[in-house]
Amino acid sequence: MMTGNEGKVTLVSAGPGDLDLLTLKAAKVLASADVVLLDDLVSPEIVTLAPQARVIRVGKRGGCRSTPQAFIERLMQRYARRGLHVVRVKGGDALLFGRAGEELAALRRAGVRVEIVNGVSSAFAAAAGLRVSLTHRDHCQGVIFVTAHLRDHSEPDWQALAATGMTLAIYMGMSRIESLCATLVGALPTTTPAAVVQWAGSANERRVTGTLGTIAAHARAAGLGSPAIILVGNAIGEAASFAISPASFGVHSHESSIEELRRRA
Amino acid sequence: MMTGNEGKVTLVSAGPGDLDLLTLKAAKVLASADVVLLDDLVSPEIVTLAPQARVIRVGKRGGCRSTPQAFIERLMQRYARRGLHVVRVKGGDALLFGRAGEELAALRRAGVRVEIVNGVSSAFAAAAGLRVSLTHRDHCQGVIFVTAHLRDHSEPDWQALAATGMTLAIYMGMSRIESLCATLVGALPTTTPAAVVQWAGSANERRVTGTLGTIAAHARAAGLGSPAIILVGNAIGEAASFAISPASFGVHSHESSIEELRRRA
Repeated sequence: MMTGNEGKVTLVSAGPGDLDLLTLKAAKVLASADVVLLDDLVSPEIVTLAPQARVIRVGKRGGCRSTPQAFIERLMQRYARRGLHVVRVKGGDALLFGRAGEELAALRRAGVRVEIVNGVSSAFAAAAGLRVSLTHRDHCQGVIFVTAHLRDHSEPDWQALAATGMTLAIYMGMSRIESLCATLVGALPTTTPAAVVQWAGSANERRVTGTLGTIAAHARAAGLGSPAIILVGNAIGEAASFAISPASFGVHSHESSIEELRRRA
Repeated sequence: MMTGNEGKVTLVSAGPGDLDLLTLKAAKVLASADVVLLDDLVSPEIVTLAPQARVIRVGKRGGCRSTPQAFIERLMQRYARRGLHVVRVKGGDALLFGRAGEELAALRRAGVRVEIVNGVSSAFAAAAGLRVSLTHRDHCQGVIFVTAHLRDHSEPDWQALAATGMTLAIYMGMSRIESLCATLVGALPTTTPAAVVQWAGSANERRVTGTLGTIAAHARAAGLGSPAIILVGNAIGEAASFAISPASFGVHSHESSIEELRRRA
């Protein structure tokens, strides 16, 4: 199949929120975009980096009022076939959750040229806010990125994941954090360190730390909801907030945590 | 403990190699660095972004001729205590493998202020080169990032990891790829798609695709070695190269794969 022109689609990873966490390459690609398709978890300010582009919002949050996936895929193909540079912007890294797999398959079937620009996924930003490695080698051999939001409304095998001894970085788990933690307690000690970070890597970042036994209640009490990352594992216990109390169970905004570190420095 | 000045350490993620895959924030931080401590997996050209900084190379590859970790940690503390801005540059994302956990703990003990700038880890770049999602929802619920290089020379429980059904992104596994694949075959079909991507996300990127049964031989035949990412799982089978043959088992450089996609478009 020949498109007969130079149109293409670039999947661009917008990172966790802060525009400064875009890559240099993402900024360059946006500057050359003719059309930008924007997810609604992406900071709206990103359009300032694509001044010449027509911007189309195609967000879909939790299934409601969504732009159908098939429509998004047709839109990308239509503009690319007109010879335009279509930039599909996705939050975090485009290749972790978020249905890039389906979009890539559709574009491949349609014979549309596609490129991908990586970015920072929000679990990394969550770890940065806590100032912990996801994989401190005293504690684990790796990290599992898993979504709690499965297409068929089933659940991942939490106990099998916990049994690996890896750090767990759970995406889209806030609606079921209580049951999720209760299930994990079947395979991990109740005292296993855990954290919830909402809007990780953005100016609105808020987080709580605790244990598998307490984190759900702490997160609810602090009013944390989606979008948030739930981190579980001994590596997370390296966070400074675990060493101080009772602040260790408080809510930390991005700014206050820096202040806290300044005070403690 | 008070350092009594404005010195600090910033852990900066250099991404997988291509300087364009640095974040805007990383570039800004480097521009303000007084001292840069550089790992040897980081592109040497990164120093052009830190024109005013004293650059110290502290690389350690595979344990030989290494700068001792304790020395690196003392160096960071010493310069920060002089009021300088020390930028510790790590390949990929600083919070995935690479001993950031130990460095953060040492800096915390020393009362040194620390910030972290995230980046793109090489498994994401490997997936981008293959044009696959790490977590295509037709195939899996997540991805496991695991290191094959354990401190005590033991092995991760490969079969338990495989049994989760997640995509596996294996770091530092090239020295034992044969035994690793043989062990995985105990838990996964021999036909499970697999790929090896060396220098992912850099101009030198090279990759082979195959199956759990063939990938080790393909990688050896193509001369691929460290640093490389081994990807295993059905999500990886979505790569375009699996749909074409016999090229599917050839070696693809970054440039040729773009050409190939152009031809097929």
